[in-house]
Amino acid sequence: MSSITTEQMRFWSPEVRELEPYVPGEQPKIQNLLKLNTNENPYPPSPKVVAAVQAVLANSADALRLYPDPDASALKQAIAKQQHVAVETVFVGNGSDEVLAHIFKAFFIQDLPVLYPDITYSFYPVYSQFFGVTTKVLPLNDNFEIVVADYKQANGGIIITNPNAPTSIALGLSAIEEVLQANPDSVVVIDEAYVDFGAESAVKLVEKYDNLVVCQTTSKSRSLAGLRVGFAIAQPHLIAALQAVKNSFNSYPIDRFAIAAAVASFEDQAYFEEHNQKVINSRDKLVAQLSDLGFKVLPSSANFIFASLPSKDAGDLAADLREKGIIVRYFNKPRINQFLRITIGTDEQNQRLVDTLKHEILK
Amino acid sequence: MSSITTEQMRFWSPEVRELEPYVPGEQPKIQNLLKLNTNENPYPPSPKVVAAVQAVLANSADALRLYPDPDASALKQAIAKQQHVAVETVFVGNGSDEVLAHIFKAFFIQDLPVLYPDITYSFYPVYSQFFGVTTKVLPLNDNFEIVVADYKQANGGIIITNPNAPTSIALGLSAIEEVLQANPDSVVVIDEAYVDFGAESAVKLVEKYDNLVVCQTTSKSRSLAGLRVGFAIAQPHLIAALQAVKNSFNSYPIDRFAIAAAVASFEDQAYFEEHNQKVINSRDKLVAQLSDLGFKVLPSSANFIFASLPSKDAGDLAADLREKGIIVRYFNKPRINQFLRITIGTDEQNQRLVDTLKHEILK
Repeated sequence: MSSITTEQMRFWSPEVRELEPYVPGEQPKIQNLLKLNTNENPYPPSPKVVAAVQAVLANSADALRLYPDPDASALKQAIAKQQHVAVETVFVGNGSDEVLAHIFKAFFIQDLPVLYPDITYSFYPVYSQFFGVTTKVLPLNDNFEIVVADYKQANGGIIITNPNAPTSIALGLSAIEEVLQANPDSVVVIDEAYVDFGAESAVKLVEKYDNLVVCQTTSKSRSLAGLRVGFAIAQPHLIAALQAVKNSFNSYPIDRFAIAAAVASFEDQAYFEEHNQKVINSRDKLVAQLSDLGFKVLPSSANFIFASLPSKDAGDLAADLREKGIIVRYFNKPRINQFLRITIGTDEQNQRLVDTLKHEILK
Repeated sequence: MSSITTEQMRFWSPEVRELEPYVPGEQPKIQNLLKLNTNENPYPPSPKVVAAVQAVLANSADALRLYPDPDASALKQAIAKQQHVAVETVFVGNGSDEVLAHIFKAFFIQDLPVLYPDITYSFYPVYSQFFGVTTKVLPLNDNFEIVVADYKQANGGIIITNPNAPTSIALGLSAIEEVLQANPDSVVVIDEAYVDFGAESAVKLVEKYDNLVVCQTTSKSRSLAGLRVGFAIAQPHLIAALQAVKNSFNSYPIDRFAIAAAVASFEDQAYFEEHNQKVINSRDKLVAQLSDLGFKVLPSSANFIFASLPSKDAGDLAADLREKGIIVRYFNKPRINQFLRITIGTDEQNQRLVDTLKHEILK
């Protein structure tokens, strides 16, 4: 943006001149690259997903020329069935990033500050700035764990990623209930992007707590990052706020292919469970191998690990790996600038990472 | 929302309690329905679009599990080529509704009010409320035309739909240049959702005016409403504001199928021109037939017409048509509550409309 003059900047809304946008992990187009930087699933989605898109194409004239269902009812029903909740408790959006943006607008523009950890999904401060949400950032403890007692102060809302990212550490449901009970007048959002890889979902608490919003995505455990489908589950009086926001922003956020594909994914529970278990097994194996190489790995309940090597600077290590065609995520930020966030690949991919470290970088 | 109690409403952001969301045209699931209510194209998109989606599916594992390009570079390039502009002047989003939302945020949050006509796209007041944009609504004249002289007062931005909706009337480029020149310190947005059906695009003015943003969609003239792809063209210092807003809201708004399909559409110029001409020809025929039945039809440059029948209440007429399986759009609003907005169908569909009116409703 350095090439934009002050004079040209007069056209921008003043508040937009101050924005510091989110920077997504790169999507480089390099041959033979091992991409362990954006927590994508190493496995394809259920074959039923491809069949569902083929079925849409078979009726392509109407599928393409006609608007999709603005409420994506078929998708809400499939999610409700898979999650064992009422369809009235489901909200869907263009990826969980859009769902989270709507959540910030719907609930968090309050006089009191919204609480979240210092180390968590780095889009939260971006949304906060975008919507003018005041925030209070609460440090994780020295083990990178959330300190539940900190979330018992006056606030205008709470958002907790569980398992947290990039730390990978999960919080138990009893801790989450403690937060919910301590904040009967605030909306508590549990962002469960990675929950299917080993944490316990708070969806089962939705019926009990009128202040709980659970947010999930199809991008990780359902291998549908290419499609952009996220969802939230909450009691109807909270879903109504999300609907009001969505219908004031974009009527038709989810296209016909995405609706059909995501429905097929939610209908194939066996595939979902089998492949999540594969990722979990690969993770356990990788953690053991990296520990043997001297890495300190935080206890992961996600499809990634957060690891540091005391003997080598993490930024240098990320650069070395990149030179060997392996990209991982490195955050040059306070407290975590000696860690790498490494997505769990297939066993073969993880072995390439381990071999490259062992025989080429740390030799 | 009547079932939400005041107590439950305490969870909502106060400003969200006041929102009056946009209401999209219905997408009913009725057999043998003639759907002339949401300005969709009666023809399917280019066959190359279906082939492009098939090609994505052929590589389904990576197409689905990996995030799309957050910048949708391939799509921006295809648009730039078809529109004869530099790729740096292109912005893309999840339908032109999302692009318009980002435009309101990026440019229109100013001290002075944004100007737009009293009769125009009814999402503009919704965006304004959503982002806290102050507005000044300027009446169309008695012929439902924009009065250019009105747009020469102090303002924080201007948005004009061209051709206007639901009136269908186009404004000439010289009038648009007059607005641009009178407002060197304001962003002037020309929303060209329907421009390909007979109006002149302001895209050719982008190079000359540093305050112009042109917005278009693939939903109408490219038969891709089911996909959700819209775009804006403007000089890079304005595109940068839209990018900052987009990257503060949702990194990956366009999925892999939508990118591939839209690219294929922009690459098939012959199909595009041929089918737009078909719609234009059908429109001329329909206007003549409805005029014979006593309708007054505003001069249309769009893929819809705005028509009134002096002898019959428009709301009643819409209801009668609906009973016969034909839905058109009726707006129960001041000044236009005696008009129907009717989407142009195929000749056969339009004939069904005319026959139903002639032999069943107005007999």
